[in-house]
Formats: sequence, C-alpha cells, structure tokens
Amino acid sequence: MLIVGERINGTSKRVREAILARDQDLIADLARRQAEAGADYLDVNAGTGPEREAEDIAWLVKTVQAAVDRPVCIDSPSPQALRAGVEASASPAGKPGARPLLNSASAEASRMEAVIALAREHRARLIALTLDDSGLPTTAEQRIEIAERLTRAATREGLAPEDVFIDPLARAVGIENDQGRVFLDAVAGIRQELPEVHVICGLSNISFRMPARGLLNRTFLAMAMARGLEAAILDPLDGNLMAVIYAAEALLARDEMCLGYVQAYREGRLSNE
Amino acid sequence: MLIVGERINGTSKRVREAILARDQDLIADLARRQAEAGADYLDVNAGTGPEREAEDIAWLVKTVQAAVDRPVCIDSPSPQALRAGVEASASPAGKPGARPLLNSASAEASRMEAVIALAREHRARLIALTLDDSGLPTTAEQRIEIAERLTRAATREGLAPEDVFIDPLARAVGIENDQGRVFLDAVAGIRQELPEVHVICGLSNISFRMPARGLLNRTFLAMAMARGLEAAILDPLDGNLMAVIYAAEALLARDEMCLGYVQAYREGRLSNE
Repeated sequence: MLIVGERINGTSKRVREAILARDQDLIADLARRQAEAGADYLDVNAGTGPEREAEDIAWLVKTVQAAVDRPVCIDSPSPQALRAGVEASASPAGKPGARPLLNSASAEASRMEAVIALAREHRARLIALTLDDSGLPTTAEQRIEIAERLTRAATREGLAPEDVFIDPLARAVGIENDQGRVFLDAVAGIRQELPEVHVICGLSNISFRMPARGLLNRTFLAMAMARGLEAAILDPLDGNLMAVIYAAEALLARDEMCLGYVQAYREGRLSNE
Repeated sequence: MLIVGERINGTSKRVREAILARDQDLIADLARRQAEAGADYLDVNAGTGPEREAEDIAWLVKTVQAAVDRPVCIDSPSPQALRAGVEASASPAGKPGARPLLNSASAEASRMEAVIALAREHRARLIALTLDDSGLPTTAEQRIEIAERLTRAATREGLAPEDVFIDPLARAVGIENDQGRVFLDAVAGIRQELPEVHVICGLSNISFRMPARGLLNRTFLAMAMARGLEAAILDPLDGNLMAVIYAAEALLARDEMCLGYVQAYREGRLSNE
C-alpha cells in the first residue's frame, strides 16, 4: 500500500500557525513521525490563500525535504502553487530521484492541461480527480469515464500510466446512502478498464457528518483495498487505521509470508488488535 | 448481513460441560445474549462424538428454541446428527415458520445427497462447503466449480437457490500466503456465476497461527463483504467485530439512511470506534 501522510495541512490550526511563523521544528517533527509510521509520501498543503500560498508551499516542501528521506505530495487546487512546490522540490535541498507527486489535476478545463504539463516538465507523478466542469460525478460509470479521459490526456503528454493515480472522490454516505457502494464499484471498474494506472483516495469525506468516523474510515479502506485500491491519503499516526492496513496487506498476499504483519505485531503497532 | 452466532459449540470447555450436565441455563443464556447482540441464527454444535452426538444436538436444539425466538443452525459433519437436530427443531418446542439451517453439506459422496435430501424433507436451508472427495480446493476456480456442482444438486432436488449458502472455506494466510486473496476472488466469482445463492463463511481459519487474530478476522470480514459475502458464522458477542459489520453495512448501502449504524452508536455498540 502506498501511503501519503496527510498531517502537514494548513487547515490544522497548529500547522497553519507553524507555516505563518516559519516554525521548521514543528513541520520537520510531523514529517519524521509520519515517515517513521509508514508514510511513503508526505502531503504538504499550505491552505493559506492565493496571495501567499505559492511561497508557503515552497517553504513547506524545502522544510520537509530537509527533514526526511521521503518525496513530497504537493497539494493545492492551484496550478501556480503546484509549480512553486515542484520547483522547490527540485532545488538543491531535494533528494535526487525522489520524484514528487502533484495533488491534483482534474478534468476541469482550468487544471487538466496545466497540471499534466507541469508533471511532464518536472517528471512528477500525478493524482487526478474524477471531476470535470459538470461537477462531482454520482455514478461509478461517470467516474470511470472521467478516469479514462484523464489517463488519455496524461499519456498523450508522455506520462507513464503507472505514474497516474486516479482518485474517484468518495462522497459522504451519511448524506447520499449509496455513495460507499458506488465508490467501491468505481475502484473495481477503473482497475479493470485501466489496469496500468493506480487508484488512490482520501478517507475523510466518506464519514462526513457520521458518528465514530475512525471506524467507518478504516472499514472503508479495507473494503476499497479488497476492490483494488493501492494508495491512500491518510493519517499514518492513526494506529488503529495502520493496523487495518497491515491486516489487509497480509490478506491480499501483498505482504510476503505475512512478515510485515508479524513484525508490526512484535513492534506493538497493531494497536487495534 | 445474516449472522450465525457460533458460541454454542462443544469445543468450548464450558459449553461441553453444560451439554454433559444438561445445564439448560448456560445454553439459554448464551442463546439470549447472542440473539440480543444481533444473531439471526444460533449455531449448535455438540462435538461430543458419534455415540451421543445425535442425542446431545437434539437437546441443544430444544434448549435454544425454548429460550429465544431465533432459528437454529444445526452444525455437524454427520448426516445422522443433522437429522436428529432438524427433527428436534420441528418438535412442539419449535417456533412455526422458523426454518433451521443445516451446517453442512459438501460435495463429498458421503454427505452431498444425504444432507440435501434432509434439507428438502424438512424445508431447511443449507450451508454447503466447497469441498469434495479430492480434498480442500486451493484455487478460486475449483471453489466456484464445486459451488456450481452443489447448487445444481440442491436445486435438482427442489431446494430454492436462495436457501443455499455456499461456504468457500477460508484457509490460513499464515500458512498459505495467497489464500486470503484466493478466497476473496472465490466469493466474487460465486456471486457472479450463481447470483441467486448466498455466500457465507466462518472467520477463524483465516487467522490460524497468526497474532492479533481478532484484527485479522474482522478486516477479512469487511473485505469479503466488499466482494459479495452476505452471511457469516461468527461470535456476535465480539463488539469490535460487530462494529465493523455495522460500518460495512452502512458503506454498502445495506443500511437505509445509515440508521442502523447511528442507532448502534447511540446504544454504545460501536466499541471499536
């Protein structure tokens, strides 16, 4: 499972204050703790508004790359902020070979071509949301169709399909009752139609407005993994969630001889046992 | 989700002693607690050996049916013990309309025809294991083929396909690393090839010889539900496991407006939140 650690996000009050105060220690500490807990990429989201986001995200990228040996996932709806982030990641502080992940393109006219071109220019990998100018899709078929459109556009520009991560955008089951099932069908459908691309998702939307959100989120993750999900944006410091990932990897034969699971048990990481 | 409560089983020392001592209170208490926790059927397994199993299972059936308003799942490899159980369930103590479940037939010559005939004779529902005289299958395709054979044999005798529950027999991932993935593929394959039958499983084999078995079992259950599992033989008194079932039902839109999930939360049943 490819894990993108989500904790360095300006919507968190502590992180926002650290960004504004240029508090490297807090950001570096969050980066190290997430990497140690299993993050493969560290998401950086400044969330500080258009007039300063590009500068803030560049500082976040450099701070994270100075702290840990993990690539960044540069997270903004703005192609300009993504550019500032990816250029910062290629600066001397960047680790050679650590290709960043751009989060995200979509099939909206304002970002599809621009973000794909940016990924190609910097050899970055790409998260692409199944969203276009007609809005958020409600059916699995719409998500699969947009995924096909995004993959065609990316590969036409020279990106390798295995560098594309499609996010079929989970919607809240507490508001639209069938959206869990629809999302799971979309994951399986995308894996079937586009076997070379990866499918990724965030976890928090699915449980919006529901009680016991952690339980719902980690159950959803296991179910999505059973349908073909290979990557997720999540909090690797959530021990109950990580325990479910260790278990699901063992059950999907992605953990040879279950050695990762047994090792996690020995290290006391299966907090949810 | 159809839940078969597994706690009344003679392999448990306390239950075995209660069977030998004809301790109705202990059995009735286990029946009531499982029914209250959400069991749709109560499995009864005497496990006391061929010379007395039929008599013991008949007593268990009558004791359970006197205690709760739930049908029994009569659990024995022996067609003779199954007959004793199903005849006891039809005695005056039995609730009218509460059709028992026979656990189990298989495609072994010694039990396929006999147990199917018994189910037809008593209008019982049937659990059928994907097992034949050549042994336990290792591939998904073998399981699907045996499921088709069992379903043909059952429907040829007049059983309705919706009264057949196929158990594709989970094997230990700690011993054969790919058997989790293979089982999940078998569940999906059986649902696709035989859309009218149900798929059921027990949970304990999958985690045999592994640490943190509860975590592995409940993650496996959520993943199997995502692939089409509709029934399971499990311990409904395991609050962490039941919490995952509530979550998975909500995520599969089998819980209208998520009302069951929210109600379980309010009643403090989501212990694993």
